[in-house]
Amino acid sequence: MKEITPVRADFGEAAQRHLDMLTKPRGSLGRLEEFARRLVMITEDPMPELGRKVIFTFAGDHGVAEERVSAYPKEVTRQMVFNFLRGGAGINVLARHAGAEVVVIDIGVEYDFGDLMGLVGKKVVRGTRNMRKGPAMTKAEAEACIRVGFELAVEYAGKGYGIFATGEMGISNTTPAAAIAAVLTGRAVSEVTGRGTGISDEVLKHKIRVIRDSIVLNRPDPGDPIDVLSKVGGAEIGGITGLILGAASCRVPVVIDGFISTAGALIASALEPAAKDYMFAAHKSFEIGHEVMLQEMGLRPVLDLDMRLGEGTGAALAFLLIEAGLKIYKEMATFSDAGISEKKE
Amino acid sequence: MKEITPVRADFGEAAQRHLDMLTKPRGSLGRLEEFARRLVMITEDPMPELGRKVIFTFAGDHGVAEERVSAYPKEVTRQMVFNFLRGGAGINVLARHAGAEVVVIDIGVEYDFGDLMGLVGKKVVRGTRNMRKGPAMTKAEAEACIRVGFELAVEYAGKGYGIFATGEMGISNTTPAAAIAAVLTGRAVSEVTGRGTGISDEVLKHKIRVIRDSIVLNRPDPGDPIDVLSKVGGAEIGGITGLILGAASCRVPVVIDGFISTAGALIASALEPAAKDYMFAAHKSFEIGHEVMLQEMGLRPVLDLDMRLGEGTGAALAFLLIEAGLKIYKEMATFSDAGISEKKE
Repeated sequence: MKEITPVRADFGEAAQRHLDMLTKPRGSLGRLEEFARRLVMITEDPMPELGRKVIFTFAGDHGVAEERVSAYPKEVTRQMVFNFLRGGAGINVLARHAGAEVVVIDIGVEYDFGDLMGLVGKKVVRGTRNMRKGPAMTKAEAEACIRVGFELAVEYAGKGYGIFATGEMGISNTTPAAAIAAVLTGRAVSEVTGRGTGISDEVLKHKIRVIRDSIVLNRPDPGDPIDVLSKVGGAEIGGITGLILGAASCRVPVVIDGFISTAGALIASALEPAAKDYMFAAHKSFEIGHEVMLQEMGLRPVLDLDMRLGEGTGAALAFLLIEAGLKIYKEMATFSDAGISEKKE
Repeated sequence: MKEITPVRADFGEAAQRHLDMLTKPRGSLGRLEEFARRLVMITEDPMPELGRKVIFTFAGDHGVAEERVSAYPKEVTRQMVFNFLRGGAGINVLARHAGAEVVVIDIGVEYDFGDLMGLVGKKVVRGTRNMRKGPAMTKAEAEACIRVGFELAVEYAGKGYGIFATGEMGISNTTPAAAIAAVLTGRAVSEVTGRGTGISDEVLKHKIRVIRDSIVLNRPDPGDPIDVLSKVGGAEIGGITGLILGAASCRVPVVIDGFISTAGALIASALEPAAKDYMFAAHKSFEIGHEVMLQEMGLRPVLDLDMRLGEGTGAALAFLLIEAGLKIYKEMATFSDAGISEKKE
């Protein structure tokens, strides 16, 4: 792993001095100013160019699906991969809206896609194993998933993409994400487990029990994030962790989507706390437990639209607002350019 | 005034039935689905086309500025009008980002612009009068401001613009906006008065006193919104009120920007409660008192980015999210198109 270094405050201060010369009361563009400041700190470029934008949607299946913790059958994971490739899913629509590309990665789907046009084949596992019966993955598999994400980040940074987003597809994946949230934040399972795609009260109770059982059985070590990822995580979550670490090591800003992506981010920040400096939290998901993880990392979400679809959909929308901050920074006139009187005091 | 009718629930129900066929768990796109549903209800078109988007930025001066309630001198209003026309202001940058046009209207600036290219000259007053010494406008002037906004809405609806936003510029205009908020919501002046462009504690105390004095002196009638607008309002606020009423009468959705725009919306909804059905609240301003007005109208803001610039900047950003909802509605594949298994229960 290339070294990940914390961003430097002096770049942020220089950016704020520029923002304060623009024709608006100081600070009046609120978080748009914060976004611009952070992009300058991340890129260490006083006039950053984001260039092309890309959303990485990692797909994987989960052995724990056999415990019937989701409202949808497992084959929906592969069906949705085909939908992504045909451009008909939510992420395709919102990525087009945001002018971003979508890269779909098979990192762990329980289906043989063969050599499918448009799909990045990086399968580490054919679905994870049922974590209620044993570890979801081996340590080597978990590390391989992180490597897949990391290498994709380095590859796309090299191709000149200037901002990344994470996304995922995997039926039942709110179950491992909640398990990771519980282990790494120390909260009760019931505080971080929600309804995912829309399960009943009864199924929710069962889902909480399945997660508790899996933690009791596997005893993931909160001090060892790879152990947590392998025992109660998932392949797509590991891919996201790697993508974030790769982005940070290349000084590329990375927008974290919702609940599942944030579980990947939590593992990344446990491995390397400085990685947080490169993250933007796209939105606050409707899924309970998301806010707990964001607070743990000190991230404030850009949007709050009651979304809970995943795929990278929240991140695609957040791109539009982060870019708005950069455009303000780069395109507004200064007080002296525009001949406008400054504040009286 | 053409009749403004409440939107029809059956259009919303039909829209939701379509949303529920799309390849996502039901309701999982949260407020994006709400935006789509509301656009169908507003336009009464099962597949709405928004077409071109336009932001109306009304500029006006305020006699109460002589009480020194703002951090900026009055001439900034006209200086900013020139900045808008040259394309260097925050609203220009964000409107370009959102693919929207900006129409700048002189409805009450204390300056003679002559025949200035790109400026819509609709001056009703050369600045309002100081409301601490008497009514800001006559009733006839207030009505004329509303007429200006209304006629612009009808004109632009006729030209095929499919969604409007409100914006404003007027040094000291958080003072009349707070006065309107206090009178129409019944809250204490101190609960709805904030720092505007960034005043000190001392100036804030003085501003609250000025607003209280103005209300005591003029005795605006909370049951008569035009009386409130004329006595403690402003020309640009009246223009916004008229624009909203015009939009609603043409069944065009209208995005309300921040604190000052919302004061205009509050007057519009007091005149015609059904107008609320056509409004989208763009964002929650950093200015205290904004949320109180939004709650009074039952509007939930799209964004919360600590912004407090006005001009229409929050509305420009909200356009991007409202459009995202419509694109989801129109462009996503259905379960049957995509051959995807539906929910198990």
